[in-house]
Amino acid sequence: MSDIKKITDKLIEFRNERDWEQFHNPKDLALAINIESSELLEEFLWKKSEDAKIEKVKEELADVFAYAFLLADKYDFDVKKIVLDKIKSNGEKYPIDKAKGTAKKYNDL
Amino acid sequence: MSDIKKITDKLIEFRNERDWEQFHNPKDLALAINIESSELLEEFLWKKSEDAKIEKVKEELADVFAYAFLLADKYDFDVKKIVLDKIKSNGEKYPIDKAKGTAKKYNDL
Amino acid sequence: MSDIKKITDKLIEFRNERDWEQFHNPKDLALAINIESSELLEEFLWKKSEDAKIEKVKEELADVFAYAFLLADKYDFDVKKIVLDKIKSNGEKYPIDKAKGTAKKYNDL
Amino acid sequence: MSDIKKITDKLIEFRNERDWEQFHNPKDLALAINIESSELLEEFLWKKSEDAKIEKVKEELADVFAYAFLLADKYDFDVKKIVLDKIKSNGEKYPIDKAKGTAKKYNDL
Repeated sequence: MSDIKKITDKLIEFRNERDWEQFHNPKDLALAINIESSELLEEFLWKKSEDAKIEKVKEELADVFAYAFLLADKYDFDVKKIVLDKIKSNGEKYPIDKAKGTAKKYNDL
Repeated sequence: MSDIKKITDKLIEFRNERDWEQFHNPKDLALAINIESSELLEEFLWKKSEDAKIEKVKEELADVFAYAFLLADKYDFDVKKIVLDKIKSNGEKYPIDKAKGTAKKYNDL
Repeated sequence: MSDIKKITDKLIEFRNERDWEQFHNPKDLALAINIESSELLEEFLWKKSEDAKIEKVKEELADVFAYAFLLADKYDFDVKKIVLDKIKSNGEKYPIDKAKGTAKKYNDL
Repeated sequence: MSDIKKITDKLIEFRNERDWEQFHNPKDLALAINIESSELLEEFLWKKSEDAKIEKVKEELADVFAYAFLLADKYDFDVKKIVLDKIKSNGEKYPIDKAKGTAKKYNDL
């Protein structure tokens, strides 16, 4: 079984044991991803990267992943496929010769 | 090779071809995750879940995953391990008998 | 008329001319604030503060304020009162002698 | 003195008493706005608007305003002016005859 399938199965087991699927509509899962991403961001607030506490970053990032996997599952998205597809389409928006070494957005390239 | 390793390798190849590692410090990656999560959220703004456009949700969620995998890689986190560990610690915060069927936060249980 | 009342009146006029009140429930206004805050954040992504474009920061911050005033209006909150009240309660969480010169969160002081 | 000036003065007094200006660069203030917006959003997570606790919404919205006013002050923005200017430019993106009664984004009108 793939890693992603194993993680997703565990998340769904956790959710179902608590009868939480009733709350997990896609819109609220998108809210949850945002809320967890901001808790992750808070680990870096008023700080340089190197002063963030790794243990806390780890936990908050895990929460982001958890809701992201649950949302992917809701839509039956294949996470590997959607990320690889996005890399491909980003490759067109950011061709190497134009994008190399610059952090500009594609519409400013 | 695991799915997650394969996705991460592709993301790093994409980043390195563009010489973007210089911009990808953990703090800015956390910003990027937040920005992408909000673009995902925008797909649900003023709408019910079922009115969101699945193609757009797919792309925005892929971006969230992309930066999340890149941040995990920065810290050498094993994504499977950190999510499974978090599920375990959440199990203590949300014991089944108290959490079943309620969306309350653990400190209100 | 106070500045805040004048801004709010203009925002409501703009909203009502477009018949948008039907979309502006508190939950979606909270989503909108998040989305605009992230567009603001994007002006700082991969950059130092001083490299952000002031014109863009101005516009994105204006959008954050716009939805924040609209949400305050939904609940009939007096913005001046709620901010001054919050300053007072924050003063108790962050007493000067403990909080001076440190960016720690109140639960770590 | 205008309401906004009064609020801002109080926020700056609070900040200066704690010697916090050193942490308040524009980028981190933008992070703070995002973090507070997400705490606001959390009041609506897994809920309908009407089930959010008004007292909590009030406090979290106050925090959003606080950092938004502090960021405006950093750049010496006149909050009233920037919001009224944005309303004007939004009026061009969303002309009444096209935007009336629809929640579509301007690029889909």
